[in-house]
Amino acid sequence: MNNVGDVAIGLDLGGTKILAALISKDGKVINQTESETSKQGQDGIYTTILTTITKLLVIEDINPNRLKGIGVASAGIIDSTQNVIQYAKNLGMKNFPIGSLLEAHFQLPVKLVNDANAAAVAEWIWGAGRKKRNLVYITVSTGVGAGIISNGRLLTGANDCAGEFGHISIMHNGIQCECGNRGCLEKYTSGTAIAKIANERLLAGESSSLGSIKSGDVTSKHLAAAAEEGDVFSINLLKEVGEYLGTGVNNLIHLFNPEVIVFGGGVMNMSRFIVPSIKEAVRTYGISHMAKGVTIETSTLGKKAGVMGASGLFFANDQHDKFMSPSL
Amino acid sequence: MNNVGDVAIGLDLGGTKILAALISKDGKVINQTESETSKQGQDGIYTTILTTITKLLVIEDINPNRLKGIGVASAGIIDSTQNVIQYAKNLGMKNFPIGSLLEAHFQLPVKLVNDANAAAVAEWIWGAGRKKRNLVYITVSTGVGAGIISNGRLLTGANDCAGEFGHISIMHNGIQCECGNRGCLEKYTSGTAIAKIANERLLAGESSSLGSIKSGDVTSKHLAAAAEEGDVFSINLLKEVGEYLGTGVNNLIHLFNPEVIVFGGGVMNMSRFIVPSIKEAVRTYGISHMAKGVTIETSTLGKKAGVMGASGLFFANDQHDKFMSPSL
Repeated sequence: MNNVGDVAIGLDLGGTKILAALISKDGKVINQTESETSKQGQDGIYTTILTTITKLLVIEDINPNRLKGIGVASAGIIDSTQNVIQYAKNLGMKNFPIGSLLEAHFQLPVKLVNDANAAAVAEWIWGAGRKKRNLVYITVSTGVGAGIISNGRLLTGANDCAGEFGHISIMHNGIQCECGNRGCLEKYTSGTAIAKIANERLLAGESSSLGSIKSGDVTSKHLAAAAEEGDVFSINLLKEVGEYLGTGVNNLIHLFNPEVIVFGGGVMNMSRFIVPSIKEAVRTYGISHMAKGVTIETSTLGKKAGVMGASGLFFANDQHDKFMSPSL
Repeated sequence: MNNVGDVAIGLDLGGTKILAALISKDGKVINQTESETSKQGQDGIYTTILTTITKLLVIEDINPNRLKGIGVASAGIIDSTQNVIQYAKNLGMKNFPIGSLLEAHFQLPVKLVNDANAAAVAEWIWGAGRKKRNLVYITVSTGVGAGIISNGRLLTGANDCAGEFGHISIMHNGIQCECGNRGCLEKYTSGTAIAKIANERLLAGESSSLGSIKSGDVTSKHLAAAAEEGDVFSINLLKEVGEYLGTGVNNLIHLFNPEVIVFGGGVMNMSRFIVPSIKEAVRTYGISHMAKGVTIETSTLGKKAGVMGASGLFFANDQHDKFMSPSL
């Protein structure tokens, strides 16, 4: 029997894959496994989850007394009080009581958290914002989101929906977003938005090495590669993205007064072209007595952040709001 | 001897006056007094504070066992850990250790909080957001600010500066603000901004009953009076103010996922012209699963909110972050 210290299972339910891992209290990934989720439907995905977790437990033969529970990070809208995934389009899940199902099956406590919040918790316990009491984790990927640790606790809001950073408006009456709002930060900075803007500009005749790609087919990955090769069009576009993100970051600084902001997500693979203009925006436009205390970091945990943060809920027990809120 | 239940002293240090009051646990103002602060300097103001509190205590003859402490709400930048007013321009105070001074003088515990946070606490305990776990209090006055209660606790941030709602940018590269940022919400919605916009439009020849006032002299009070009398120019301008505030409010909803938003401050005397377009913006542009749960209220405590919230820190002890944060 594997007699390591305290461990927990972390599960990250994403649109294309499930990541499951056994994580120790000191943030070590003891073992992990990945499965495809696409087109399985909620029952299929649930069966995959059961198989995956069972395998991990059998392989590692963990002392049950050391196993603290199962933390689940999920995309979509969740209810962390009832441990129900209310709606996750990419998982095909609707009102799925994952908490009670897993609890009954494994006889272990389960905690559910949304994916951006999980990443924030991971960066807070083990990552780039380690032990800071005020941290914002920002993910810039196909969408833009955030997880917020404020005054030493995860901020969830009334319905686990806090941190919709991609949908704050930085442009009154700006571009219409699918969410219903206008001028959403996401429309200027997500991977999807960046590709759209690049394609529009190329179509309008701007000069770039990307001009050789079929009209409309440029992705943010193309842009990253071109920027690496010195394409001025791509470098300038990414600089602009940093300026827009900088406006959003200043808004977070002025509202949350954090010590550290940690960036993750696929678009941040291009961080060397984006982060300098974020920092410049904070220096230039941030209120100085708040901005000067903030460091801008990139994730040190990368793709493991979700699964680690989910397990981390069992190691940050006393720091996670829902388990110690005062009753009013 | 006055043997009421638990009471605390609330002190509200504003730019033009000091408000002091004895407040009972159920939110009753037992007695209150007001003094001018202008041009006294920090030592003069401190003497006034001592006299004021002493008077209150002598007049009411409170049982010392019932007196929980002195809560101080202050404008400016504060340090609530050290109970020091770091910088308050209108009070002429710089690094003023009000907490230790009052503690030594009255032999009572002292708690310091910034004024917008105090108002948020008051509305949360006794006012329009009573007993909600997620509340944002917004003050729209000469400036714009906010106090945030999130997951049942006052959110202060790293340096007691959280909630600078007036200085979130709702217009990337918008109007330059004195704070250094651009497109600050305050530049479109504060009393000062509203008057400026009105004067500019009148000068540009727009038609209004305010045209009879000397060029440049129109204040937000003139605007309120004109709107009450049906002046279309004024009514439309206030509607626009509501639209800008609506964009800011949606940003708060998307970041904090609150249950209630409470508006206070002098500009909200014109709430009947402003709040409808705020509500319209939330209905139209807010993400529906977050926006539909939010009620928009106006303050029920008005000018007493600061002094009540300061005393309230002693009645919401276990709800006020700095007294029960977990240590990391």
